[in-house]
Amino acid sequence: MGVVVQKYGGTSVGSIERMRAVAARVQRTRQQGHQVVVVVSAMAGETDRLLKLASEASPAPVAREVDTLLATGEMVSIALVAMVLREFDCPAASLTGAQGGILTDNAHTHARIKQITPARVQQALAAGIVPVVAGFQGIHAGGDVTTLGRGGSDLTAVALAAALQADLCEIYTDVDGVYSADPNIVPQARRLNRISYDEMLEMARLGAKVLQARSVEFAKKYDVPVVVKSSFTEGSGTLVTRPEQDMEQVVVAGVTSDRNQAKVTLVGVPDRPGIAAKLFGRIATANIIVDMIIQNASEGGLTDISFTVSRSDAQQTLELARQSLPDLGASDATLQTNIAKVSIVGAGMQSHAGVAARMFEALAAETINILMISTSEIKISCVVEDKYTELAVRVLHNAFQLDQEAVL
Amino acid sequence: MGVVVQKYGGTSVGSIERMRAVAARVQRTRQQGHQVVVVVSAMAGETDRLLKLASEASPAPVAREVDTLLATGEMVSIALVAMVLREFDCPAASLTGAQGGILTDNAHTHARIKQITPARVQQALAAGIVPVVAGFQGIHAGGDVTTLGRGGSDLTAVALAAALQADLCEIYTDVDGVYSADPNIVPQARRLNRISYDEMLEMARLGAKVLQARSVEFAKKYDVPVVVKSSFTEGSGTLVTRPEQDMEQVVVAGVTSDRNQAKVTLVGVPDRPGIAAKLFGRIATANIIVDMIIQNASEGGLTDISFTVSRSDAQQTLELARQSLPDLGASDATLQTNIAKVSIVGAGMQSHAGVAARMFEALAAETINILMISTSEIKISCVVEDKYTELAVRVLHNAFQLDQEAVL
Repeated sequence: MGVVVQKYGGTSVGSIERMRAVAARVQRTRQQGHQVVVVVSAMAGETDRLLKLASEASPAPVAREVDTLLATGEMVSIALVAMVLREFDCPAASLTGAQGGILTDNAHTHARIKQITPARVQQALAAGIVPVVAGFQGIHAGGDVTTLGRGGSDLTAVALAAALQADLCEIYTDVDGVYSADPNIVPQARRLNRISYDEMLEMARLGAKVLQARSVEFAKKYDVPVVVKSSFTEGSGTLVTRPEQDMEQVVVAGVTSDRNQAKVTLVGVPDRPGIAAKLFGRIATANIIVDMIIQNASEGGLTDISFTVSRSDAQQTLELARQSLPDLGASDATLQTNIAKVSIVGAGMQSHAGVAARMFEALAAETINILMISTSEIKISCVVEDKYTELAVRVLHNAFQLDQEAVL
Repeated sequence: MGVVVQKYGGTSVGSIERMRAVAARVQRTRQQGHQVVVVVSAMAGETDRLLKLASEASPAPVAREVDTLLATGEMVSIALVAMVLREFDCPAASLTGAQGGILTDNAHTHARIKQITPARVQQALAAGIVPVVAGFQGIHAGGDVTTLGRGGSDLTAVALAAALQADLCEIYTDVDGVYSADPNIVPQARRLNRISYDEMLEMARLGAKVLQARSVEFAKKYDVPVVVKSSFTEGSGTLVTRPEQDMEQVVVAGVTSDRNQAKVTLVGVPDRPGIAAKLFGRIATANIIVDMIIQNASEGGLTDISFTVSRSDAQQTLELARQSLPDLGASDATLQTNIAKVSIVGAGMQSHAGVAARMFEALAAETINILMISTSEIKISCVVEDKYTELAVRVLHNAFQLDQEAVL
């Protein structure tokens, strides 16, 4: 008996037939006494079709026009889903991002939500009408359409749920929840019944694709309970929520991997104060995000600095590093792209000793060499050669017995 | 040296390649010293694709959602055309109907323009930017997208030209102007260099497809000179403008035909006052437009009343007529759908005697029977059996020597 926001992804609204399944589910939820707000993505394939047209039109299409173009994908979905809902005797009305009150900044193609004023959503609910809101899009103060970047529809759903103080935000997708590892790599991977915001955040950042990190951050900030579930099967899915204070936390919740990694090394850097600031300041100015940084022990006043960036930023980073050589007094810059990051995530590792040791032992037992290590309170990441990615994930999944229900 | 509004139809923006031809033309016009406003339709085929999805979603999709759906077609065009223009080093920015200030009433799928506040269009022009405005769409006071019905993009262009006090509104289409008859029927048909608003209005109402009557009405009301020309060939096209007072007017400008006709006849109607009012009041209530009405001479106090409606309204009209039989005291109602209306249009027929007689003689010479006749100051229409449509058009084109340049 409350407000439920249901978000349906591109495959869930990929055809009129699938929209009928969505409509049936919305009707069932209403019949259970809930008020439903629907958020939809563009029909599967539509965004790619539009991007292909844009790339034909211009090798570097201007971001404002890309947003006007892409926003049509969700507009088509909301209109069709509203039509289908009415065929199910469910009063429904489409709302674009602008009509849904999703106000963003001016950063076209990766806008950030600044404010939500969902007056029309609330009016619809009060009138017994299901609002069908376009995900992924908003409007900026100047009145132009913006889009929220990858995973933007999840963000729309979570943000609307927060603004409406909804009881639940359900993310319907083509998998039935969050898994202890990618089931394509580890067949024994187990669906998690619940996971904390912080753990989900780390898993999303470290390679799990089911939810974007930005949506989880938003959910955490506004304390929105989020359920990830399949629109094709029944099942309770995975609840992403705040940790329960009175329970022990699972040591390791999941294993993730990310091949979108490259390592840049500066060789023969003088071991002087200010060198790192100079180098990484320059890289930050180019909007390149640096992940791990390792500085080796100094030998004779010279050291090596290694750091990782996204593989797509690798070439540009290498060039920047090379340009910095004279300025830094370093002798060379090298690039390694055949690497991957394998991580374990779990809130309980804060209070359990020996988790890192067990991880390193498990990898060593398969003679997988660790190139870099990075830790935080609730995760440990190791960079390894990318040919070992799947093996490392399986080995770690097994070492922490993630195929078994966690004993709390 | 002034503002020119250029409207490009669906085939003119049917592919990125064709959009490049549009961009080249816009650039040429700018280089001649004009400020250009571009209005575009949806890419050819896109509106049909969307309507097919709508009909899959619902046999009778609600008009508000149809508008949200269809409006995406023009949004795709404006974004892509703006991208292509920038590749031609022409600063350009897309504007939806709402952003272009096209305010309409609430009549979804056939909205009427209430007001145009083209502030963003004017700002763009002042900044040296080509505004690329979505045709066919607007926004109503409640903030929902509306569409203007068939030919709506022409209307957007003419209305914007009026609001901007543009020097010219150019309608680019797949034919190179307005012809003295449909060239598919009459190969010798001649392109008209100029035609008056009133003549164009009659030709549009009587079957010429090149411009919608609503756009011409608007152009006449606000005295916007309109040129119809081809986007695929060079040529001066046809200028639609007010008549020049000091010149003789051409007797017959063109011949048109319209097969979308049906004739309903009420037989044995008592010849009493108020009968026609009762019958046509009932039909008007059903939003059916009656075109010609003929009442035969009374025999023994009984008469026949025949009238024409669109073929799509024929069955409903027949039913209404049958339901009215007892009330009217008539004996029967019949329907004839194998008819067509053939018309000649020309402002000069007001001052020339014998035009009607020449029309009837020409048809009679081919033994084409005239079923109904209707005249106004600048047109004469005859209903004939539809199998004679093309023959009648050719015969009339020949009788008034429309293949020859008019002698003024």
